[in-house]
Order: sequence, then C-alpha cells, then structure tokens
Amino acid sequence: MKQAEPQSGEDRIIAQFRALARHPGAFGLNDDAAALHPPAGCDLVLTADAVVAGVHFFADDPPEAVARKALRVNLSDLAAKGADPAGFLVSLALAASAGEPWVAGFARGLAEDAERYACPLLGGDTVKSPGPTMVSIAAFGFVPNDKMVRRAGARVGDAVVVTGTIGDAALGLRLRRDAKVAGPWMLDAAAREFLIGRYLVPQPRNAVAVAVRRHASAAMDVSDGLAGDLEKLCRASGIAAEIRLADVPLSDAARSAIVQDADLMEAALTGGDDYEILCTMAPGQVTSFRSATAAAGGPSRNSSTGSRSS
Amino acid sequence: MKQAEPQSGEDRIIAQFRALARHPGAFGLNDDAAALHPPAGCDLVLTADAVVAGVHFFADDPPEAVARKALRVNLSDLAAKGADPAGFLVSLALAASAGEPWVAGFARGLAEDAERYACPLLGGDTVKSPGPTMVSIAAFGFVPNDKMVRRAGARVGDAVVVTGTIGDAALGLRLRRDAKVAGPWMLDAAAREFLIGRYLVPQPRNAVAVAVRRHASAAMDVSDGLAGDLEKLCRASGIAAEIRLADVPLSDAARSAIVQDADLMEAALTGGDDYEILCTMAPGQVTSFRSATAAAGGPSRNSSTGSRSS
Repeated sequence: MKQAEPQSGEDRIIAQFRALARHPGAFGLNDDAAALHPPAGCDLVLTADAVVAGVHFFADDPPEAVARKALRVNLSDLAAKGADPAGFLVSLALAASAGEPWVAGFARGLAEDAERYACPLLGGDTVKSPGPTMVSIAAFGFVPNDKMVRRAGARVGDAVVVTGTIGDAALGLRLRRDAKVAGPWMLDAAAREFLIGRYLVPQPRNAVAVAVRRHASAAMDVSDGLAGDLEKLCRASGIAAEIRLADVPLSDAARSAIVQDADLMEAALTGGDDYEILCTMAPGQVTSFRSATAAAGGPSRNSSTGSRSS
Repeated sequence: MKQAEPQSGEDRIIAQFRALARHPGAFGLNDDAAALHPPAGCDLVLTADAVVAGVHFFADDPPEAVARKALRVNLSDLAAKGADPAGFLVSLALAASAGEPWVAGFARGLAEDAERYACPLLGGDTVKSPGPTMVSIAAFGFVPNDKMVRRAGARVGDAVVVTGTIGDAALGLRLRRDAKVAGPWMLDAAAREFLIGRYLVPQPRNAVAVAVRRHASAAMDVSDGLAGDLEKLCRASGIAAEIRLADVPLSDAARSAIVQDADLMEAALTGGDDYEILCTMAPGQVTSFRSATAAAGGPSRNSSTGSRSS
C-alpha cells in the first residue's frame, strides 16, 4: 500500500466523522451534499438548533455529552412534531482549545446517539472559531403527509399532558453551577447525579413520537420552561390553559428539593431544558395515549385548556 | 387593539425574520419545526455550511453581505449538485456587538437573496455568542430521483469545465486586507471593486443547475481553490486531470493583476471562494452545455481528464 499524503488537521477531523456517515446518502462525506429519498406519502420535517460553549453547555463538559445535547435538542423537536428521525447535518465551529481528543470524543457521542435514535449523520461542515466552540445541528424527520403535529391545534376542553417530569434540568443546572446548594436541598448523591444528568444530557421522547402523532391536537417540546412554553402553545392555538401545580409531574429528587425550598417550584416551571413533550388532546384520548407511551416510560399528567379570556 | 406584551430581545429578533418566512411550511416561525412536501419522484439534497466573523468574513462587513455570503455558499453547493433550491434553516449566534440594526440588515440581505434564488427561509435558531458572530445555514433542494450530480462520476476522457472566472475572490481578499496592493497591480477603481465584490458576495450558479444535471458526469463547487477542489473531484472519481493554465478563465481584472505579478496566478488557482461550478462531461457535451449556460452568463473553459497515473 502506498503511503498516503500527510493529512491536514481538517482532514483528520473529517475522518473522525466519516466512520459515522454510513447512510448511503451521506456519500461517505466525500461530496458537497447529501441525498435523501423521501418515502412516498410523507412530508419532511426540518429543525435546527445551536448550542454554544459558555451559554448552553460548560466548556469543560465532556465532548460526548456536548455532542449528545446538540443532537438531542433537535431530536426532541422531531419527537414533539410526531416525526420519525431521518438524519442530520452538523456544523461544528471549533475553539482553539478543542483539539483532536475533544473532536474524537464528540464524534463518539454523536455516533452512539445517531445509532440509538436511528438518526444518521448525513453531512456538515467543520470550521475554526476564534471564540467558543459552537455546534449547530439541522435534523430531519418524516411524517405522513400533513400529519406534522403543530403548536396551533389545541382546542377548548383539551387536556394538557407532558411526557415526563418537569424541572429536573433547571435544578440540575443550579447544582452544576454550585454544588453547595445540594446541602440545604437535603439530596443524596444519587438524587444530585440524577438532576445534573437531566441537565447535561436531555432524554428526547422519540419513542413516543408516533403516539403524539396519533393522539395530540397540538404539541411542542419543553425547552424554555413549562410555563412559558405552554403559553406559546396556547398563543399559537388561540386558547388559554389552566395547570394545577399539584398535577405537574415531579421526580422524587425534584420533589425532595422543593419540599426544602418552595421557591424552587418556580425554577422548575420556568427553568427549561426539560425536553419533555407538552401536548394537548381530547380528554377521551388521554388513557390510550398513556397506554401507548407507558412502554417508553415516563409519567404523564394532565390539566385542562379553556377559552382565552383576555 | 390591545397593547401587546413587551417583546424580549429574542422576540424582536425573531420578528425581523418572520417577515421572510412566507413559505407555508415555515408556519410563520411559530412552531418547533418546518414541513416540506417533497415533489413526487424527487430526492432531497441537503447541505450545511457555516461562516464565522474573523474567519470567513470581516466583523465590519455589512450585515447584508454577511447574510448573502452565508446563504450563497450553500446555494452554490445545491447548484453544483444540479438541485433546485427548496428552502433553508439558519442558526445565528450573535456576538454582543451585533445589535438590532445589525440583525435588521442581516434579515434584509437574507430576504433579498431568498427571493432572488427562490429559496425560502423555513426556520432556525438565534442564540447569543460570547465570541464572534457565526452563521450556520442548512439548505435543501430537490433533484429527480438519483440525479444528484456527484463528485464521483468523472470518466477518463471527460472535459473539465468551469462556469466562470477563477481567482477573482482570492485577489479580492488580498485587496480587502490591504488596499495598497492595488498599486503594483495597476488596477483601476472599477477593477478593484469587482475583485473585492467577488470575495464579499459570491455569485452562485443556480441558474445553470439544470444544465449541470443534464450534461455533467461529476461536479462540485469551487470553494477551496480550483487546484485543490479539482484534486478532490478526481480522487472521488478515481481519475486524474490535466489543466492548461492558459485555459483557466480569468476576468480582465485578475488578468491585469497577474500580468503585473505572475505569482498571483498561484493565488488565483489555490485561493478559493470562487463559487463557480467545476464539472466534467463527455467532450461531445461541452458545446450544448455552453449553449445552455450562455443565457446565465459566465465563460466556461475546458481541459481534459486522464486516467490516474499514480
């Protein structure tokens, strides 16, 4: 075998990703673009979200976790729209501090999640950043024609349902910022780890996307806090909703902390990064939605919507 | 009309883009994702490219030009693949210095180009950057099934063709960096402006995408310099190519500068940012390709490919 020409830094970085790009339409990352063959009768669902070091993640977070967060916040949008993942493009702007080991870890995290969520890497772009590392991912999914679940579909009388516990990531972020808060919250090591993990690596609900598509009248993912996101869904649908605080599902860890400091309930409702699906449905749909989602785990609770009064 | 609630900075930024998002599948940027209805018998072509202030553009470039460059480098990939633009997603990480007037200019530039190239904004994400402004765009196009023009399609004996002049942007970048170089190059103001303009705002060849699809055996856009990009195309196709320097199309401005300083020819061939389409085709196709592209303007020249000898 002949000696290959010496690889540039960019070539070595692309080589790290090439192993992930096994989808035939990625052309082994050896082309300008990827190609997808849309299944007949399907619409393409498209979303893009960026994460920036120092804003959406800590510069010293493990690169595997950064990759997972960057991909999963997009997978969460696909799940909330009832779409089956089809693939993604990644734009990676690398800070000078992100050397080859960082990139290797990032590629490893991305590879594992691409496999886990059946969402293959299709292509992308790697550039140098004179500032912080930034990852922008555009993710694609398919839904049957006109079946994307919109925010604007909630009807008066619908139940409001979430696919899992709320507020864990907001409390986890506080713990990540200052480990000392765990003392007054009376949390053991496992509870602390659980909350920090919920912040560090979202658990997008792609397993329940089909159930959302079949049952929900409207849906979105909870990324900016349940309170604000529900308001957005209501505004898009032209309705109002009432949520009983006691009905908001909390993890044992979050409940323990909130018992010690009632102010944390507001943080839980407004903090964001939950990446659960918030959806509305006719009350008669709730039981079968719960059955359909039970296999995927995660509690779901409901409250009710009403007509907008102001 | 009731007084709307005060808008946050992010809301005001999204409002700037909402006016662009007239495609029905963009849902007025009021949803988590966009939806596209793929035409029957078509494949989706997907590409993503990022530009970073201080790397791919100057921080003091007009925001309209930054928007155009960010979108056009992606449009150029679609053109080289023979794809008709279908839409794009934009992730915008805004430096602290990029205030609302900057965003308004950026949105204006994006709106004009989205219209000009019939490539509508479908969605995206706006975040804060503690570092430089960065724009990542993912763009989508359609081609008839299996008709995306690959890099890996060139055959022995094919002609090598480019859709316009080479090296203008590389010389324009030197002028943009140091206006004094224009003296020895003996360029008048119009020639200087032409070269700088070729660097500042690419002119993607989407008008000839259908001709590329019909005639080319392989294609890519020239973004990293003709010499290196031709090598990539050859490697993907398993062939070698020979280019006569005299056949490389040069603008009058570039030719004038190169006459004064012959070393500039190397800069022209390796500098990049040309955003012309480099393609190969059977020699018998060249005349009809030239006729098909003549309406869109821009010279095209050809050389020939040979079998890889090493």
